[in-house]
Amino acid sequence: MATLCRPAIAVPEHVITRDETLELARTLHAGHPQLDLALRLIGNTGVQTRHLVQPIEETLKHPGFTARNALYEEEAKARVPEVVRRALANAELDVRDIDMIAYVSCTGFMMPSMTAWLINNMDFRTDTRQLPIAQLGCAAGGAAINRAHDFCIAYPESNVLIVCCEFCSLCYQPTDLAVGTLLSNGLFGDGIAAAVVRGRGGTGVSLECNGSHLVPDTEEWISYGVRDTGFHFLLDKRVPGTMSMLAPAMRDMAAPYDWDVSGLDFYIVHAGGPRILDDLCKILDLQPTMFRYSRATLTERGNIASAVIFDALDRLFEDGGADHGARGIIAGFGPGITAEIALGTWSEPGRERERSVRETVTMPA
Amino acid sequence: MATLCRPAIAVPEHVITRDETLELARTLHAGHPQLDLALRLIGNTGVQTRHLVQPIEETLKHPGFTARNALYEEEAKARVPEVVRRALANAELDVRDIDMIAYVSCTGFMMPSMTAWLINNMDFRTDTRQLPIAQLGCAAGGAAINRAHDFCIAYPESNVLIVCCEFCSLCYQPTDLAVGTLLSNGLFGDGIAAAVVRGRGGTGVSLECNGSHLVPDTEEWISYGVRDTGFHFLLDKRVPGTMSMLAPAMRDMAAPYDWDVSGLDFYIVHAGGPRILDDLCKILDLQPTMFRYSRATLTERGNIASAVIFDALDRLFEDGGADHGARGIIAGFGPGITAEIALGTWSEPGRERERSVRETVTMPA
Repeated sequence: MATLCRPAIAVPEHVITRDETLELARTLHAGHPQLDLALRLIGNTGVQTRHLVQPIEETLKHPGFTARNALYEEEAKARVPEVVRRALANAELDVRDIDMIAYVSCTGFMMPSMTAWLINNMDFRTDTRQLPIAQLGCAAGGAAINRAHDFCIAYPESNVLIVCCEFCSLCYQPTDLAVGTLLSNGLFGDGIAAAVVRGRGGTGVSLECNGSHLVPDTEEWISYGVRDTGFHFLLDKRVPGTMSMLAPAMRDMAAPYDWDVSGLDFYIVHAGGPRILDDLCKILDLQPTMFRYSRATLTERGNIASAVIFDALDRLFEDGGADHGARGIIAGFGPGITAEIALGTWSEPGRERERSVRETVTMPA
Repeated sequence: MATLCRPAIAVPEHVITRDETLELARTLHAGHPQLDLALRLIGNTGVQTRHLVQPIEETLKHPGFTARNALYEEEAKARVPEVVRRALANAELDVRDIDMIAYVSCTGFMMPSMTAWLINNMDFRTDTRQLPIAQLGCAAGGAAINRAHDFCIAYPESNVLIVCCEFCSLCYQPTDLAVGTLLSNGLFGDGIAAAVVRGRGGTGVSLECNGSHLVPDTEEWISYGVRDTGFHFLLDKRVPGTMSMLAPAMRDMAAPYDWDVSGLDFYIVHAGGPRILDDLCKILDLQPTMFRYSRATLTERGNIASAVIFDALDRLFEDGGADHGARGIIAGFGPGITAEIALGTWSEPGRERERSVRETVTMPA
């Protein structure tokens, strides 16, 4: 049974607060006909702080796609290895134990991928499979977990390293002035996550099953314009309402396993924006506290794209984890519109007895 | 046992011949200090014809990355569905039988990926897994086969559709004048391939095992410069010698299965250039005819990147396939430098008896 172990997370040292973001929007877009709407939307995100790979003054400049992508590469090489080392330590594995690296990023493009650089520079085995995922956006963290899970089903002795490196600030496009863009400028942050899926052993989320769902005919809702100036993030105003379409997919995926998606013990979902979490509470009839980890990620780091679910999961670990055997869901949402969903149970070998004692006590006569 | 079924291939209608390529190089680069070398290298590729999505006059213009990528998207949407339909027919499957789509392309970038568009526009199931691969270059066709194989090991009842859509001509960079670029300009062609890996049933290559190999410290040998003007293909002059490093990896991968990589029945390898095939003959002690399918692809279509191995495999099918149980290797090579290798046996249900009769006859007493 494959286990998703504790992630390692890193956020860059440059911080921008909610107030600074709002002030910046007021200054940069004074006279914008929908400035008030944009400010309200940014305020409503609940994002208090975000971390950036550069000071905000540099972030606001656009030196061209060439320079932007070169900076992506430089920053990724400088920042990723330390996060990978911590993720391996969390999984109690060595680089040589890794059979596949899934490297996820939609904010910079490299060929060869960072997978090749990591293998060469961190001494991974030369037969390590490389799975770079660039085109699934915020859903790609969930996709990486799911493909890692599949790989461990196929090869139960194997281990997969997942790395999400998202420098969303390097996709800032100063000339894009749609309200969706202004909102995005106040929503996304930079962050790196890494985690290992172990085929055998490990503490964390034991992956039971996984699935994907594409909401029909919503390709245009979240997309990149790919231009001379790089990637332009385009956000349709219908996106915040997406959960009414994705929550049923979550429910349907759980049903064949007799899991009630409204009655799970933990929820690790992509906090793309506040409405996602609010709507999931309503549609799945859950208390807001069930999404406290995702909410905390959004509040403290903004939407860090594919890394969100790992940051939220790390908070569950930090909080002491769950009871052995506790049921949960992990769901990434992104362009397509696509949901990548995993169902899992908390697995912590030392806690098995604790759980069985508790079950004995609470079991109805 | 997963089976790679007969691929479907399409090449665009605009053709450029060897002589036209050489004449063009002479005209465009008159006075280039290494023109003679470039002409010799292009001549040595053995490429006789290549197919392009636009007439050559249009191909030579660079209207900017925005327009280039928009054209990629337009051409992909116009040309891919028909190839997919043929690949499904070859596998005797319907769109609704497909559980995962691996869409491979390094010559255009879309988010959402073409996977989402295909699901929406060809009526694939909404729970079809999406695996877009953009950063493995020419090795990505092999990677797609191998990840499809893994998926079918994990879920033996499933089927994976692979699509390789490579419009290399849309990466033509008129201001790049290194000899490696001039050679590439005369080497790469456009093409689309699709093929299904069936978890159960099907005729074709029954996939036995797969593996990946990265040649240490060769990241710079084949790479993209990612710039305002799009993807710039950079080719180091050491690349043609790569087989001395990859052939041993092929041998090592086969050894644990007691397969002698010099004694297989068929070889479907990436024909990146003529030296790859020549060197493999020497290093593996094989007759040039063993690489006739890859050679024919190179000659008639140029290097069509990740699609090469599917085009070569299609020629094996066209040639009547192999004996049931015949052993072969499929290998994609690309940036990293990475090899994605699969070992398989020819599986053709109707031919089982034929083989067993033959084996009976030739079996030593």
